[in-house]
Amino acid sequence: MKLYDATSAPNPRRVRIFIAEKGIDVVLEQVNMFAGEHKTPEFLGKNPSGKIPVLELDNGTCIAESVAICRYLEAVHPEPNLMGATAEELGLIEAAGRQLEFELLGPIGAAWRNGPVVAGLLPDLEQIPAAKLQGEAAARVFYRRLNDLLSRDEFLAADRFTIVDITALCVIDFATNLVELRPDDDLSSLWRWHAAVTARPSASA
Amino acid sequence: MKLYDATSAPNPRRVRIFIAEKGIDVVLEQVNMFAGEHKTPEFLGKNPSGKIPVLELDNGTCIAESVAICRYLEAVHPEPNLMGATAEELGLIEAAGRQLEFELLGPIGAAWRNGPVVAGLLPDLEQIPAAKLQGEAAARVFYRRLNDLLSRDEFLAADRFTIVDITALCVIDFATNLVELRPDDDLSSLWRWHAAVTARPSASA
Repeated sequence: MKLYDATSAPNPRRVRIFIAEKGIDVVLEQVNMFAGEHKTPEFLGKNPSGKIPVLELDNGTCIAESVAICRYLEAVHPEPNLMGATAEELGLIEAAGRQLEFELLGPIGAAWRNGPVVAGLLPDLEQIPAAKLQGEAAARVFYRRLNDLLSRDEFLAADRFTIVDITALCVIDFATNLVELRPDDDLSSLWRWHAAVTARPSASA
Repeated sequence: MKLYDATSAPNPRRVRIFIAEKGIDVVLEQVNMFAGEHKTPEFLGKNPSGKIPVLELDNGTCIAESVAICRYLEAVHPEPNLMGATAEELGLIEAAGRQLEFELLGPIGAAWRNGPVVAGLLPDLEQIPAAKLQGEAAARVFYRRLNDLLSRDEFLAADRFTIVDITALCVIDFATNLVELRPDDDLSSLWRWHAAVTARPSASA
C-alpha cells in the first residue's frame, strides 16, 4: 500500500497517525502541492477531487478521503479499534467525528481559505473576508464545546482514544500553526487533553 | 427506536430512505424547526449541535448525524448492504459519499444559507452574497462531474444502489426545490439516474 501524502497538510497527518496507532506498514509518497502535483491528469485519475491523502492499494485501487482511508484500514487491520467495536460505538464515534469536521474543521478551513496564507499562495483566488470572520467565530464556539466535553470525559468519544481524537488534534494544530486560531489558554480541559494526545508516539507520525 | 425527523429537510430524508430500503421499523417524531424545537435545552441534550435527524435507541442513547445513524442501522440490519460489504467497498463508498457532501452538499448549503429563503426565515442572520455565488458555481461544477460518472456507471459507487445514491438524490432534490439550483437539462446521464432512483419505492419515504 502507498499513501500519497504531504507532510505539512492536516488531512494526511490524520491518516499517518491512524496508521501509526495500528502499526501498519504503508509506503509514503510526497505530493508537492505547491508545484500543483495534486492537480495533474495522472493524480486526478487517482482522485478526481485533486486532494490528498489518497491510499493506493496493491491492486491499483485508489481510496480518497482521510476517513474513508481509515475505514478501509480499520476493516483490514481491526486492532486496536479506533472507529467503534459495536454498532452503538460505530454510530457515536462517527457522529462525534462528523460534528467535529462540519462544525470545527469546516469553519477553520473557511478561515484558512479566506486568509493571508492562501492569499499569498493563490493570488487569483476570490477571497471573502466575511467568511473568514464567520469561520473564526464558529471555531471559537466549538473550542468551548470541546472544552466542556473534556471537562467531563478523558477523550472525545467512547471513553477511549479514537479517530475523533486524531481528527481534533490535527485540526487544532493546523488552526494554531497556520490559521492563527489557537484555542484560548483558559480552555484548560482542552489543553489537558491536547497534552495527553500529543504525548502519544503516533502524534509525531 | 425513534427518529427525530422533519419532513421538509434533506438530511432526515436521507435516513428515511435508508430505513425504507432496509425495511426497518422506526417511529418518526416530527421536530418543528420553524418553532425552534431543535434548539430547546431538551433537544440539545439529545444532540448538542441542535440538528436533525437524531436516532434515539430504546436504551436512551441518541445518535446524531445522518451518516452515523445509517452506520448504526447498517450494523444492526446488515441487509441489504448499502455502505459496503468488503473493506475496499467500505472505503470507496465512504469516499464517494464524503466527496458528495463536501463538494456538493456543502456548496448547496452555502447557497441556501446565504439565499432568500433563509433571509426570510432568519432576518438577523448575517448573510454573505459572495458565498452564495461561490456555492452555486461549485455545485454546477460538481453536477457535471456526477453526469460524467453516470455516463459510464449506472450508480454512483460500487456498481449498485448505495447510500451515496440516497445522499445525491436528497441533495439534488433539495437544491432543485428550495435553492433554485436544479441541474441543467443537458446533464442527461444525471437525469437518467435521477429518474431511476426516484422510481424506487423508498424515494417517497
